[in-house]
Amino acid sequence: MKHTITVIGSGNWGTAISKLIAENIKDKPDFEDQLNMYTHEEIIDGKKLSHIINTENENIKYLPKIKLPKNLKSITDLKLCIENSDVIVFVLPHQFIEKTVHAISTFALKKDCFAVSLIKGITIDNNNQIILISEYIKRELNIDCGVLMGANIASQVAEGCISEGTLACSNDRQMRVFMNMFNCYTYRVSYVTDIVSVELCGTLKNIVSIAYGIACGLNYPSNTKVAILRNGFKEIINFCQMFFEGVRIETFFESSGIADLFVSALSGRNSKYGEMLVEGMDISSVEKKINDQKLQGPSTAKDIFAFLEFKGKTCEFPFFTMVYRICYGNEPCDSILEVISFKS
Amino acid sequence: MKHTITVIGSGNWGTAISKLIAENIKDKPDFEDQLNMYTHEEIIDGKKLSHIINTENENIKYLPKIKLPKNLKSITDLKLCIENSDVIVFVLPHQFIEKTVHAISTFALKKDCFAVSLIKGITIDNNNQIILISEYIKRELNIDCGVLMGANIASQVAEGCISEGTLACSNDRQMRVFMNMFNCYTYRVSYVTDIVSVELCGTLKNIVSIAYGIACGLNYPSNTKVAILRNGFKEIINFCQMFFEGVRIETFFESSGIADLFVSALSGRNSKYGEMLVEGMDISSVEKKINDQKLQGPSTAKDIFAFLEFKGKTCEFPFFTMVYRICYGNEPCDSILEVISFKS
Repeated sequence: MKHTITVIGSGNWGTAISKLIAENIKDKPDFEDQLNMYTHEEIIDGKKLSHIINTENENIKYLPKIKLPKNLKSITDLKLCIENSDVIVFVLPHQFIEKTVHAISTFALKKDCFAVSLIKGITIDNNNQIILISEYIKRELNIDCGVLMGANIASQVAEGCISEGTLACSNDRQMRVFMNMFNCYTYRVSYVTDIVSVELCGTLKNIVSIAYGIACGLNYPSNTKVAILRNGFKEIINFCQMFFEGVRIETFFESSGIADLFVSALSGRNSKYGEMLVEGMDISSVEKKINDQKLQGPSTAKDIFAFLEFKGKTCEFPFFTMVYRICYGNEPCDSILEVISFKS
Repeated sequence: MKHTITVIGSGNWGTAISKLIAENIKDKPDFEDQLNMYTHEEIIDGKKLSHIINTENENIKYLPKIKLPKNLKSITDLKLCIENSDVIVFVLPHQFIEKTVHAISTFALKKDCFAVSLIKGITIDNNNQIILISEYIKRELNIDCGVLMGANIASQVAEGCISEGTLACSNDRQMRVFMNMFNCYTYRVSYVTDIVSVELCGTLKNIVSIAYGIACGLNYPSNTKVAILRNGFKEIINFCQMFFEGVRIETFFESSGIADLFVSALSGRNSKYGEMLVEGMDISSVEKKINDQKLQGPSTAKDIFAFLEFKGKTCEFPFFTMVYRICYGNEPCDSILEVISFKS
């Protein structure tokens, strides 16, 4: 059986991973040669983005100067993509997930269709419970959904720089298909079954990256910066262990754990946002400055704070709470020093 | 009882930690006001280093431009220091530990004397077994010995920048004395009982830092650099678990674990050595360039390689083996890419 793959999303990371998959599946017997990349249409200098991608083999808006393979096809008809797909790869800003999944739920999915989410973020349901994006997709579309996260600056993956990723899924057959799609010499994938830790760490690390960026903006020395990073990381682990089942501490040593945290702190967009916060910039100005890319960190900090408040647990998570208060409250940036643990 | 403390070592880290302890113990009822810092005498521009430290309150060679407190006294008579001490703090390059401990073993130590080691390094005995420095001190001097390690660039601790440290010891009373000596608002100490993991991680991270420095020297992008760091970190954990008892995986999330690894990779001297290796410099030229400070990483890589070879386990530790081969063999620097795990 030849699997047809659709990537939902054609932003920076969506286009980069589409390029990688398209190159990887070419001439493999398990896959249809064409990789579909669903594109939310935009007009760039009077031309359709999808048309530019398909004729010039370049996503000039979100991944400029990277040549895309010819078997990557930008498609703007979501229904057409989905109803033909055996594997769906979700890579869009988590702000758009609900609307997109709702649309997909009205289509006729193929019987054995399954999915993988590369989305960093969470949703909070009406009962104030955290729903992982993979869980949400699973529940709303009634299909299996794994996750792929890792220490991946998108442009570097697109350029073929050696990178690692962590795949988490609970089905062996699907795992083999995913490995076949993603794993290659330049993108080295490890496999675990602990979906929760991989997905939550990938999401929560954006909060910690903001804090690291604030520390950079305040010109703190490296001892202080890594102390902030470490305390944030410990809070991620505490959070996973307190509120979720099946968390394995070893998972935090995967690429989706320490490595993703480290690379995001050093060069991710949420870290840059933290730096700009010190200069007094707000979220939407920062997003404009970084080429209209969406920031996940601030909204995640807000969602997590609301959840912790509902649970009565803000005191046990001073780090997340402080980042929320700096982003949305009147807390000054240098209050971040208070979240480095201190026994007097 | 008022404890008398002697710090053995007056290099960069020795002087920095002496400053911190001297400031910390001042006017505390549990301690004699004077902090003794044993100094291996050197002549600087015709003057004795110990004299300069005691008259100018500055270690102009190893910690220039930092004012030292008046209750820090440089002493060159090791016997005098030791025979008066209740607490001995070992902070010297591990190359000098055997000679120093041997000398100390001929003195009359006080009955309840105990020690703490801040030394990164190991010794290998005649049976090719690894002896931790804390174990070696314990065995040779018949005194208890804890360890203190952490994400500490010495000059930043000396300047009073907020930093964290991890204390590991097995005796509650001694732990309280150590906390009283080291812990303060600017140096935030956590306490664990897992000495092995704290000490080994502090030591082995120097090997990983060399690899990170090589990656920087080769201008690898951040995805690749953190992949190297992560694979090295996993090998540290594997090493501890394979060859030592009582290793708790949680210890690797302490300051002495991930945080020390990060700060060393970002701005430590072994990482700089890795960078300079790419330019073709050798160990002694690098040491000259960094103000005669001793590098621990290359000798640790050599010792660990010899140990692994003796155990027949080099294949299970490709990372450590590769760093050794780059430092001492003919392996080119870019072979470091081979140690990022890859399942084809």
